[in-house]
Amino acid sequence: MSSTGTKGLEGIVAAKTYLSDVRGDVGVLIYRGYDINELAGNVGYEETVFLLHQGRLPNVPELQDLKAKLVGYRKLPQGVIDLITSLPKDTVPMNALRTGISALGCFDSDVDNNEPGPLQEKALKIIAQIPVITAYFHLHRQGKPLVESRDDLSEAANFLYLMNGGEEADPESVATLDMCYVLHADHGMNASTFASRVTVATLSDIYSGITSAIGTLKGPLHGGANEAVIRMLQEIGSLENVDPYIEDCLATKKKIMGIGHRVYKVLDPRAVKLRGMVQKMGEKIAEPKWIQMSDKIAGIMQEKKGLHANVDFYSASVYYSLDIPIDLFTPIFAIARTSGWSAHILEQLADNRLIRPQSDYIGPEGLKATPIESR
Amino acid sequence: MSSTGTKGLEGIVAAKTYLSDVRGDVGVLIYRGYDINELAGNVGYEETVFLLHQGRLPNVPELQDLKAKLVGYRKLPQGVIDLITSLPKDTVPMNALRTGISALGCFDSDVDNNEPGPLQEKALKIIAQIPVITAYFHLHRQGKPLVESRDDLSEAANFLYLMNGGEEADPESVATLDMCYVLHADHGMNASTFASRVTVATLSDIYSGITSAIGTLKGPLHGGANEAVIRMLQEIGSLENVDPYIEDCLATKKKIMGIGHRVYKVLDPRAVKLRGMVQKMGEKIAEPKWIQMSDKIAGIMQEKKGLHANVDFYSASVYYSLDIPIDLFTPIFAIARTSGWSAHILEQLADNRLIRPQSDYIGPEGLKATPIESR
Repeated sequence: MSSTGTKGLEGIVAAKTYLSDVRGDVGVLIYRGYDINELAGNVGYEETVFLLHQGRLPNVPELQDLKAKLVGYRKLPQGVIDLITSLPKDTVPMNALRTGISALGCFDSDVDNNEPGPLQEKALKIIAQIPVITAYFHLHRQGKPLVESRDDLSEAANFLYLMNGGEEADPESVATLDMCYVLHADHGMNASTFASRVTVATLSDIYSGITSAIGTLKGPLHGGANEAVIRMLQEIGSLENVDPYIEDCLATKKKIMGIGHRVYKVLDPRAVKLRGMVQKMGEKIAEPKWIQMSDKIAGIMQEKKGLHANVDFYSASVYYSLDIPIDLFTPIFAIARTSGWSAHILEQLADNRLIRPQSDYIGPEGLKATPIESR
Repeated sequence: MSSTGTKGLEGIVAAKTYLSDVRGDVGVLIYRGYDINELAGNVGYEETVFLLHQGRLPNVPELQDLKAKLVGYRKLPQGVIDLITSLPKDTVPMNALRTGISALGCFDSDVDNNEPGPLQEKALKIIAQIPVITAYFHLHRQGKPLVESRDDLSEAANFLYLMNGGEEADPESVATLDMCYVLHADHGMNASTFASRVTVATLSDIYSGITSAIGTLKGPLHGGANEAVIRMLQEIGSLENVDPYIEDCLATKKKIMGIGHRVYKVLDPRAVKLRGMVQKMGEKIAEPKWIQMSDKIAGIMQEKKGLHANVDFYSASVYYSLDIPIDLFTPIFAIARTSGWSAHILEQLADNRLIRPQSDYIGPEGLKATPIESR
C-alpha cells in the first residue's frame, strides 16, 4: 500500500450492502432507500428495525407482530441477570453490556444455528434484551431493585421506565429517545458494524458479532465520542470560555470531540436533526447554555478547520437534557445500533465470504535463533 | 469495487506490521524476522511472547523475568471465577472464554488506560489468565474442583495441569503443546487479529480487542476449523472410507475442513511441522489411522484441487493425540494466539488510525414514507 493511502482502510470498499448509504459529500444518509429526513419523526424505532431487517416498512399487523415479539423477548435468562448483578458497581457500562451480551450466547442452547429463520429471531431477541441488560446493570450499580419490563411500553419507553427504576417517562422524552434510536440505527460500514461483519464472516455466531461491535463502539473515536462531548462541554463550563478552550485545542492539536467525520465532508444530517431536538428541549427543560456553547464550537470549527459537527456532538446534549447519566450515552447508541448491527450480520451471513485482508510486513528477515545463553 | 475483486478484502493491505509475515506463495511464515522453522523446536512459547512484544528474543534474565510475571498474573479475580463457574455446563467453551475475558475487563479498575506501560502489563495478564479461564470452565462443566496454578510450571505445562484437574502432564506432551503454541502465536492479518485491531482502533480497550478476536476465531472458517477436522475424521472413521467421502464432498461442493487457505497457495509451513509431530506421536501413543487418513485426504485434495492442508488440518490430530477434548481445540488456538493478538493491539495503539472502510450501497433510493395505514 502507499504509506498513508489505505491506512485505516479509508476509501476501501469492504462490502456491498442493501442496508444504508452514507453520502459524505452531500450530507445524506439513506436506510433501505429512505432518506433519514424522510424517516425521522415519521417512523418509530420498531418500524426502523423492521425496515432494516425486511427491506420495507411494515404495515399495521406486521408492526404489531414485531412489537409483540420484542415484548415477548425482553425477559433475560436468570443466569444473565445474576451475572450482570455480580459485576463490580464501578464497571464501565459498555464493558458490562459487552459481557452481558456475550453471556446471553452462553444461555442460548441453539447458539450456533445460523439458518436464516432462527438467526432472525436471535437478532430480535438481542434487540429486545440489550436495553434490559443496560438498565439492569444501571439499577444494580445504584443498589436499586430490578423492575419488570412493561408490555404496554415501546422499546424507548420501556428502557426509560427500567432505567428510572419503574418510573414512566413523559411522552416527549419517549418521543425524543425514539427519534434518537432511529437516527442511530445504521450508518454504512462504520467501525463497529464492520467489526461485527468481520467476526461473523468466519461463520461465528451472532452473539460474537454483537459483542465485537459493542467493544468497538466503546472507543472515543466511535460511539464513545458522545460521552466525551458532554465532558468537554462541562469542562468548558460557560459560553465565554469557548473561545480560549478551542484556541488552546487548536494550538496543541488536541482533538475536539464530536467534530469531523471520516465520511461526512459536509454537515452530518443526523446532527441537523439532533440540533433541532436540543433546541426544542432547551426551550423547555434544559439550560440554553449547552446549545449556545455547542453552536459556538461548531461555528468556530467550521470556519477555522472546515470541519462539521457529527452525530455525537448534538446527541450528547439531547441525552443530557433527558437526564440520562453520561456513561449511559454510549450504551444508548449501542441499543439503537443493535438494529443495524444485526441487519448487517444477517446480510453478511446470507452471502458470506471470510473477511481476511493482508498486511504489509516491514520488519527484518533472515534472523537466526541463537541459543539463549549467547544472547 | 469490482463485483468479486475485494469481497472479503482479499489482497487488500489493512496495515503495516513489524510482527509477522505470511508468504503464501512460497509457504513461509516469519515472526519478527525469524522463519517459523527457525523458532519451532528451538524457542519456547514464553520466548515467543517476548519476541512478539519486544521485537527480539530475550536473554536469560529477561526470560526469567517474563516467566515470573506470567506466573504472578495467573490468579483470576474471584468475581471472574464465580462468573465462569456460573455458566451453563453445556456452554460452548469459546463462548465461555469470550465471556470470561470480557468479564476480566470489568474487574480491571484501570481498564481504559492505554498508555504503553500499563497496556503491556494488561497484555501479559490476559496471556497468563486466558488458559486459566479455559481450564477452570472445563473443570466446572465436569463438576470437578478447581485447582491452583503451579508456579514451577511453564504456560503449556500449567494449562495441561489445570485442565487435567491437578495432574502433571508428561514432558513430551508439554513440549508438544508448547510447540503448538509457538506455531499458532501469530499469523499476519488473519481475521481474528484484524477484528482485534478494528476494535481497538476506535481507542477502545484491550479486553474489548481480545474479546472481538475470540468471537472471530471461533468460526469454522477460522480457528473453529481444527474441531471440524477431527469431527470429519471421526465421521469418515477408517482409511477405506476416505475415497468415497472426499468424492461425495467434491460432487456436492461440501467444504473439506482444514484444506485450503486464503493466503497459502503452497504448503502451510505450520502444517509441515504439525504433521511431523503427529507422526512422531502416532508411533508411540495414538492410533496410526489418523495420520494415514489425514495424509490420504491431503494427497487427494492436492492432486484433484491443488489445495493444501493448513495448520488446522494437523493440529487437530496433535490435540486429539494429547487427549484434549475436541471442543477445547479452538480455545487452545485462542490461548496461543493471544500473544499475537496482544502484540497487534500494542502495535495498533502505538500508531493508531480508526479502521473504517466504505460500503457500496446497492439498494433503492428516493422512497417516500407513506403513513402506516396505507402500506
